Amino acid sequence: MSSFVEYSPNCDFPIENLPYGVFSTKSNPQKRIGVAIGDEILDLSVISHLFNGPLLKNNQDVFRRDCLNDFMALGRPSWIEARSKLQDLLSASNPTLQEPSTRSKVFVKQNEATMHLPAKIGDYTDFYSSIHHATNVGIMFRGKENALMPNWKYLPVGYHGRASSVVVSGTPIRRPHGQTLILEGTPPVYGPSRLMDFELEVAFFVGPPTNLGDTVPASKAYDYIFGMVTMNDWSARDIQKWEYVPLGPFGAKNFGTTISPWVVTMEALEPFKVPNVSQDPTPFPYLQHSESCNFDIKLEVDIKAPNGIVTTVCRSNYKFQYWTPQQQLAHHTVTGCNINPGDLMASGTISGESDDSYGSMLELAWKGTRPIPLRNGTNRKFLQDGDEVIIRGYCDGDGYRIGFGPCSGKLLSATTQ
Amino acid sequence: MSSFVEYSPNCDFPIENLPYGVFSTKSNPQKRIGVAIGDEILDLSVISHLFNGPLLKNNQDVFRRDCLNDFMALGRPSWIEARSKLQDLLSASNPTLQEPSTRSKVFVKQNEATMHLPAKIGDYTDFYSSIHHATNVGIMFRGKENALMPNWKYLPVGYHGRASSVVVSGTPIRRPHGQTLILEGTPPVYGPSRLMDFELEVAFFVGPPTNLGDTVPASKAYDYIFGMVTMNDWSARDIQKWEYVPLGPFGAKNFGTTISPWVVTMEALEPFKVPNVSQDPTPFPYLQHSESCNFDIKLEVDIKAPNGIVTTVCRSNYKFQYWTPQQQLAHHTVTGCNINPGDLMASGTISGESDDSYGSMLELAWKGTRPIPLRNGTNRKFLQDGDEVIIRGYCDGDGYRIGFGPCSGKLLSATTQ
Repeated sequence: MSSFVEYSPNCDFPIENLPYGVFSTKSNPQKRIGVAIGDEILDLSVISHLFNGPLLKNNQDVFRRDCLNDFMALGRPSWIEARSKLQDLLSASNPTLQEPSTRSKVFVKQNEATMHLPAKIGDYTDFYSSIHHATNVGIMFRGKENALMPNWKYLPVGYHGRASSVVVSGTPIRRPHGQTLILEGTPPVYGPSRLMDFELEVAFFVGPPTNLGDTVPASKAYDYIFGMVTMNDWSARDIQKWEYVPLGPFGAKNFGTTISPWVVTMEALEPFKVPNVSQDPTPFPYLQHSESCNFDIKLEVDIKAPNGIVTTVCRSNYKFQYWTPQQQLAHHTVTGCNINPGDLMASGTISGESDDSYGSMLELAWKGTRPIPLRNGTNRKFLQDGDEVIIRGYCDGDGYRIGFGPCSGKLLSATTQ
Repeated sequence: MSSFVEYSPNCDFPIENLPYGVFSTKSNPQKRIGVAIGDEILDLSVISHLFNGPLLKNNQDVFRRDCLNDFMALGRPSWIEARSKLQDLLSASNPTLQEPSTRSKVFVKQNEATMHLPAKIGDYTDFYSSIHHATNVGIMFRGKENALMPNWKYLPVGYHGRASSVVVSGTPIRRPHGQTLILEGTPPVYGPSRLMDFELEVAFFVGPPTNLGDTVPASKAYDYIFGMVTMNDWSARDIQKWEYVPLGPFGAKNFGTTISPWVVTMEALEPFKVPNVSQDPTPFPYLQHSESCNFDIKLEVDIKAPNGIVTTVCRSNYKFQYWTPQQQLAHHTVTGCNINPGDLMASGTISGESDDSYGSMLELAWKGTRPIPLRNGTNRKFLQDGDEVIIRGYCDGDGYRIGFGPCSGKLLSATTQ
């Protein structure tokens, strides 16, 4: 495949990718849906009439919305039809959009656009599906004997997160205040978190809705998965440790969760499927699915120190996840919980086996005992004010790359209170 | 105060109450905002032009929406202006709406209306603010020594719940499937929950929004609290016990949460304020507020057995809550978490000191060891299929009652899978 839009072979957004996002520009502040190609955005709001296939011709209005929810609701056959149309329209052999006067109307430079959340997120759920991460954290907090809870290999443990504070890449995050326990047996103290962390995650957006009471077994769950983004689930470890018993993380996470703006579709990720991790014990039937739904998505975390020097502190991979997205969705709905287009379901921190593949500072610096050297000569146990955390994800294809674009956010100092 | 609409002295909805809800009718399926008075609903969508006070005259469109969010966003001065206008319009001395031809246009019988969720709930948070409930559950699950976690008296423990499955009173709830551990040390089993429970709660709706990074101390939190509903946080105790470590309840609660349809405003509850519970240790400054924000709201739970016989199994009171709504909201936002109009924040199960004031079957039947006798001759350790749970809440005034109307739901048998 080749496009008339030019880009380099290591560009995140070739014609094989075509992720969806929501953007606006100075000259047109209206939020609208676009597709990334090269370093441009194809503005779908102005070409919605070109989606004239059997499924989309009566649904062209979904491309004129200010979010992707209605498009997500249509389901996989419509997503495939849209992708096929877009690849056709963007191919080198199709003249429809190539005329300079047309091109200037339908394309926007990415560096002239402001990106927004791709969807209205009704509910956001965070799983805990990396066995290495769960084991690492378990060892640190409960010791080696009780590292993995008895339920962990039977079900994809998850919890409800805060949807209102999910923000798009580029949004600064302020160091939160809260209560922390400095010394066991003494009263807690109040103040800014001292142990700020990132969590390297990948999240998927839900497509079609279900009704309350419906269940979706893992074998049918793929139909409900629209596409993926990378995610940084910012965490205040000291607040978390004091608050999380018995109802789970709350204030330690609810001050901000950053996602990348471009939703990479499952169709674009398809060539990068790898076998699921082997699971023992065998999951219950509602969690079983025969097809692979693990992906070779390379993941990296950079810390850009306040002086601008960047250090890659983590190299992980989505394929290290124990539980698949289908299993997460199946477990979420096994009770009859209804899901909606635009719901976000995240993997949990994705750590690999090796020390440098851990997806959080907590693990990388092993609870502060192994400070991470940065290229600027300093080191880090946790994040410092002014640090920018940049998550990158990409699949390496044959001569092309399916990239997620950056998921970044700078940590601001706490407010004075 | 007296209204030209007639009702009995023990009616839930006198002119002193005027709760807001969203309803539709067979003849007009459009969802619209109404106010309950007696056994009627005043349809605000048709009288929005009458809100001609200084704050509302340019915001009359909030009364023509299909949910209360925009009205909630306006804030207390506007809410007070609206209440004052409604009390004037409904008073016996005001002829505006009394003409029979007008009356037939602006009033709808409650028994001819279908009630809907009063707001679009962006996020739903559940706290754990009754000391008796937390202690009871702690004793059952962790023993008397560790009943109350060390953090409990320092902060209002809470967790994010599932917003999509919050439903309005009258919606049936299906017994969920899930994993449970029958015997410690054996593998879990899959099937319908065997330990279905209710949780007696009261929840408040958030009014004006905040921005990400903003904090709201308890001393200013009242401005963000619009009004209250009663709530049943249905719980599958066996699923909860197996899944909840370490990230909190998930599938045990996400299959349905029922709220009463009428939002009783803080202005209506004002005369029923009682002193806050005394707190030791003294909370951190961000959790302190001088004014009382505890309320003498009598709460009752009925179980209507499948044969129709009703037994009141619990008599509790909102005033048994240790942490106030202001403290809950302050703790929620202390990290900078943003809140939005229509967010729902619930008390957690409200248990009193006495055996018959416990707000859940788990506590009332003390983990199945003290079955509750029903008036139909059977007894209950947990809920059975076909049981309807009806929560009622009311404040007894001098010759009138501020009631919440019923919050009810019937438990349906699990689906065959």
